[in-house]
Amino acid sequence: MRQVNVPLGTRRYSIHVGQQLLPQLGTRCLKLKLGARCAVISDTNVARLHGAAALASLRAAGFSPVLIPLPAGEQAKSLAHAQRCYRALAAHRLERGSFIVALGGGVVGDLAGFVAATYLRGMDFVQVPTTLLAQVDSSVGGKVGVNLPEGKNLVGAFHQPRGVFCDLDTLQTLPAREYRAGLAEVIKYGIIADAALFARLERDMDQLLQKHPATLETVVARCCAIKAGVVARDEREGGLRAILNFGHTIGHGLEAISGYGKYLHGEAISIGQVAAARLSQSLAGLPEREVMRIETLFARAGLPTKVKLGAAQERRLLNAMKLDKKVSGGEIHFVLAPRMGRATCGHRVPEPTVRAALNGEAA
Amino acid sequence: MRQVNVPLGTRRYSIHVGQQLLPQLGTRCLKLKLGARCAVISDTNVARLHGAAALASLRAAGFSPVLIPLPAGEQAKSLAHAQRCYRALAAHRLERGSFIVALGGGVVGDLAGFVAATYLRGMDFVQVPTTLLAQVDSSVGGKVGVNLPEGKNLVGAFHQPRGVFCDLDTLQTLPAREYRAGLAEVIKYGIIADAALFARLERDMDQLLQKHPATLETVVARCCAIKAGVVARDEREGGLRAILNFGHTIGHGLEAISGYGKYLHGEAISIGQVAAARLSQSLAGLPEREVMRIETLFARAGLPTKVKLGAAQERRLLNAMKLDKKVSGGEIHFVLAPRMGRATCGHRVPEPTVRAALNGEAA
Repeated sequence: MRQVNVPLGTRRYSIHVGQQLLPQLGTRCLKLKLGARCAVISDTNVARLHGAAALASLRAAGFSPVLIPLPAGEQAKSLAHAQRCYRALAAHRLERGSFIVALGGGVVGDLAGFVAATYLRGMDFVQVPTTLLAQVDSSVGGKVGVNLPEGKNLVGAFHQPRGVFCDLDTLQTLPAREYRAGLAEVIKYGIIADAALFARLERDMDQLLQKHPATLETVVARCCAIKAGVVARDEREGGLRAILNFGHTIGHGLEAISGYGKYLHGEAISIGQVAAARLSQSLAGLPEREVMRIETLFARAGLPTKVKLGAAQERRLLNAMKLDKKVSGGEIHFVLAPRMGRATCGHRVPEPTVRAALNGEAA
Repeated sequence: MRQVNVPLGTRRYSIHVGQQLLPQLGTRCLKLKLGARCAVISDTNVARLHGAAALASLRAAGFSPVLIPLPAGEQAKSLAHAQRCYRALAAHRLERGSFIVALGGGVVGDLAGFVAATYLRGMDFVQVPTTLLAQVDSSVGGKVGVNLPEGKNLVGAFHQPRGVFCDLDTLQTLPAREYRAGLAEVIKYGIIADAALFARLERDMDQLLQKHPATLETVVARCCAIKAGVVARDEREGGLRAILNFGHTIGHGLEAISGYGKYLHGEAISIGQVAAARLSQSLAGLPEREVMRIETLFARAGLPTKVKLGAAQERRLLNAMKLDKKVSGGEIHFVLAPRMGRATCGHRVPEPTVRAALNGEAA
């Protein structure tokens, strides 16, 4: 088991990465001195696989947990489902001193975290991410929220969890497509912050695809440490934190115009990152061979690297990107990588250059 | 014009109390260095009376405002209406640097503030309260939120405005019943924090009922200063701030069981405060003559001081009170006044004593 600290003063917490963590959930929550009552928010798929273990562990440690199941899929990340959770919390008489356990992937974590941020004006929550994407990204850093029909994560808050428990065993039952989608965020950390991690991923991609436990523990903990470092320096996205959005402006746009269903988030940002790498070649000096390494690694992870769009779809995508939260003064700002292992934000990119990158060209 | 400062460090702001403030809204927002785009969230009644003045003032100062009207009444304070606001903000391309103007009473301020707290994970907003209740209470202090069918304000956040502009002229068009409801919060400040204010209200109640501008300015500014002082010492309701809830536990319960429509908030807390005064007599030593002064002053303000409940309604009220946010370990905690001008929190009150106070007895 590895432990990564997120040093945020009074809001500091630890990320635990290892095997057999779910059976220890109750005792670990006891150490955090959380209230007696809690609600485990999960989706029906994850609840079937891991709900009983989570509830049993919490009960054995003396907590009174109640399970709130959501339908599986991105559609659950809506205000309507948040409202269902609030009403269930009210029905179960949760109090300000109670806490919420987010048991599931990014959708569950973001929604449950938003519910925790806003029910009774804020209560404690812990993250128990059960997908690779949630373990290396969404469960860490306190960004929580729901989608609108107009765009992803347009409604939300910054609300740090009290603890994050990444049980690598839960990845063994993850469908192959979802697991690969998580690798898109893993590869991102190599591109934006750690050239050695990128090289390691090139070397160990086969082991990773086979979910080799020791490799997973090292890689997941390294990704969490990179994210924790960024979040610690810029909790509320004043600047630096935006580098984590490498590939996300295009990725979010793709998810929005396809109705949050066609692409998994990891697939959309895989396409987005390859396009961002091309933009980085055109505008920030990233050598072409690095663009090739990036495209090759995403492809080896079984992820899509391009998208074919008609003119009307391309227009819709550019409009959707303008709704992204990283817009200011109507201009789209991109995160670019001037070299492997380094990213910088705030690049204004002209629309024709974005279009060319989407079409696989370095304009 | 009087100015009251709310000293909250990086979140500090000023409350302006005076006549002719709405025509100055634009220039005052300029001084706050707010973004160019803004949305004025209001209800249809207030928008008809003051919407044009607000928009004209903002436009004259160079802002690009859009009006988002809500239906009038407590029903608007729901997640469904928050969602309508979010979608309107997305349609109008508001950005993180944009801001929201809450133009209206407590319902508008709480809802618009919640929308500002959560859209794009938080944006600036200013309060332009147009009811007495909103001017002396809900617009100050950063508590924002919406109701659930299970209870009032169960969903929300702490999100401080960048400025509060109390234009006393807007009170002249306020319906008599709503104006009197606001006096319930005014009287509360006398009871919990300022015996001299209470005595002044006894002396000047007739002038207040006639909306005498100079009296209003003094009284509204004094109430804001009391609230600002409490909020500055306890922004997130760790303890002290709870004294502002004097009369509110019963008041919120009454609003909940009557479906948020029968009583105005000020009417419900008028009944709640008279009951809390009786509890204060039974349990905290408040002299009976002070209970009489309190009941008399609420009655002179034209407010209800008692409620007749059947046994089933009483049961529902007690259950609703247990859903209140100030519950811990299943026990209802009350704010009581040991003497005029002073309040203390955290009093556990047995159910029979609550019942007796509701029935007009000091048990």
